[in-house]
Amino acid sequence: MEDKFITMAHGAGGAKSQELVAEIMMPAFDNKYLRQMHDGAKLSVKNNIAFTTDSYVVEPLFFNGGNIGKLAVCGTVNDLAMTGAVPKYISVGMILEEGFPVSELRSIVDTMRQAADEAGVYIVTGDTKVVNKNNGDGIFINTAGIGELIEGCDIAPQNVKPGMDIIVSGYLGDHAAAIMALRHKLQLPDTLKSDCAPLNKLVAKILKAAPGIAALRDATRGGAAAVLNEIAGQAGVGMLIDEECLPVRREVRGFCDILGFDPMYLANEGKMLIFANKADTAKILAVMHADEYGKNACVIGSTNDTAPGEVGLRTNIGGIRIIDMPAGEQIPRIC
Amino acid sequence: MEDKFITMAHGAGGAKSQELVAEIMMPAFDNKYLRQMHDGAKLSVKNNIAFTTDSYVVEPLFFNGGNIGKLAVCGTVNDLAMTGAVPKYISVGMILEEGFPVSELRSIVDTMRQAADEAGVYIVTGDTKVVNKNNGDGIFINTAGIGELIEGCDIAPQNVKPGMDIIVSGYLGDHAAAIMALRHKLQLPDTLKSDCAPLNKLVAKILKAAPGIAALRDATRGGAAAVLNEIAGQAGVGMLIDEECLPVRREVRGFCDILGFDPMYLANEGKMLIFANKADTAKILAVMHADEYGKNACVIGSTNDTAPGEVGLRTNIGGIRIIDMPAGEQIPRIC
Repeated sequence: MEDKFITMAHGAGGAKSQELVAEIMMPAFDNKYLRQMHDGAKLSVKNNIAFTTDSYVVEPLFFNGGNIGKLAVCGTVNDLAMTGAVPKYISVGMILEEGFPVSELRSIVDTMRQAADEAGVYIVTGDTKVVNKNNGDGIFINTAGIGELIEGCDIAPQNVKPGMDIIVSGYLGDHAAAIMALRHKLQLPDTLKSDCAPLNKLVAKILKAAPGIAALRDATRGGAAAVLNEIAGQAGVGMLIDEECLPVRREVRGFCDILGFDPMYLANEGKMLIFANKADTAKILAVMHADEYGKNACVIGSTNDTAPGEVGLRTNIGGIRIIDMPAGEQIPRIC
Repeated sequence: MEDKFITMAHGAGGAKSQELVAEIMMPAFDNKYLRQMHDGAKLSVKNNIAFTTDSYVVEPLFFNGGNIGKLAVCGTVNDLAMTGAVPKYISVGMILEEGFPVSELRSIVDTMRQAADEAGVYIVTGDTKVVNKNNGDGIFINTAGIGELIEGCDIAPQNVKPGMDIIVSGYLGDHAAAIMALRHKLQLPDTLKSDCAPLNKLVAKILKAAPGIAALRDATRGGAAAVLNEIAGQAGVGMLIDEECLPVRREVRGFCDILGFDPMYLANEGKMLIFANKADTAKILAVMHADEYGKNACVIGSTNDTAPGEVGLRTNIGGIRIIDMPAGEQIPRIC
């Protein structure tokens, strides 16, 4: 493909669209399902399935620790894992803005393939549209995914009961801090990078060790605060978090102190919260600590029946303040 | 929800996002799967499945015969049907532009529900993002879908062989002509409207009558010309179309004559091409003629082994000209 920039013709469904698919998408994503050359992929699945979708509109597109393509694959893989499923198949819908550099597109699709390989999923079907200059923002990516539900598990927010432990899989706020630092051109240590990662293999190991886990949720948009509030509301339980247990990197905490952010509200792309019976906590942590994506996991609090629907934070100085659902715009808005 | 316009807060993952989902998405799409309140839906499927995705970026959003929401549901339903599947579950990913009118959003989601009901599918999972003013185009909708493959059928472009009939399900070009007329503010008869429709129930009936059908394809972007060329290439067969057999409405033909378009290249949203053994043609047409979406179906040509990969048109005056794959931009660009 000789074009250096995406043109309207690449979205027209004709020869240029075919060239884009044949020379960029197919070589990057190649697998036996894509080669069926259908409007849709024909797949076989075992058991019941999980189905999810997410669109990715991050700016900047490339950042320390990944790019929008890695986010799009890992995000949908993680959403499937959080339902208690083994992710299997991913669809990719791209909306490109006229003039988008073909070199950046190549880089993004290569990263998507790498992320899919790491997660063990196939990109099996896709669609590309092109919109006029200034009617888009470079590239938007939608991914949808199908996973096979792991038998013997019942993951649902309603299963969260009072007296359970709340476990976080690692440091909070890395993704949002990395994106914001880049956007504000802040000089920050190279250790500050997005945590974007596929969590499905870790989740499968955890569910094998402790099939009775009540709920799992990745703490993306709205951060840990949004997840805790959402599940507190859905389950009708209270939650109390210990501030001194919250894992936040020194550089992220410094970043939050300077700019006035709260790490509880910062988006993550490779962190999850686990709600489990206290009897299972040691088993879960043992599995997590042996995994790259869970090595810094810890208990950050527990659920209770004293304040249904409320999330409290026991602060370092001993008081308790309420952690509300984030109310207005994302601060910082990063997706 | 009191807001008249979408704000960045509606995409922030916090209270305003919840409000949008609770007051607009859930009431419109309500079903037992959505009520699971997960990051993904838990579903059961029989047999093997088909999986597909498409993004919709049409302008204008509302037109005679439908709106972007109807397109998004019918398009994915049809893509599933074209693989020989019974569509079951749909995901909806929306990218809204800051300032988009909430009343239009309500109207679009209501139409999506109606289209889903007509097609007999559930909208089971979704995601909504909001991008800054001028970084989008009102609303983009991605749908992905899962269908159950009909046992005993083997629909694939490679199954198209020389000597087969090519059937079209009805008038060509209605959708593109309706959109273009609106865009150019042309006064045209009210009969000129988009053909946007779910074809899955018709396809199921056809496949029951003639399970040996070789290939099916809806003639969307790039029109019938793109589909014929694509399948001619994939199957390695030639095709010859009879111009005098092409069903084109008088008003669409007039529209094409005035503006210099060829109906073979105009997008449709409720028309398909069927490639079948001549022995099955009568059975297929009998089923189609009894259905609202197939009542004008007819044979438009046949496949051959004399010009592999080429699509020819026998014109009304007796000559043959080549119908190429559309090469550049969509003229008119409507998706």
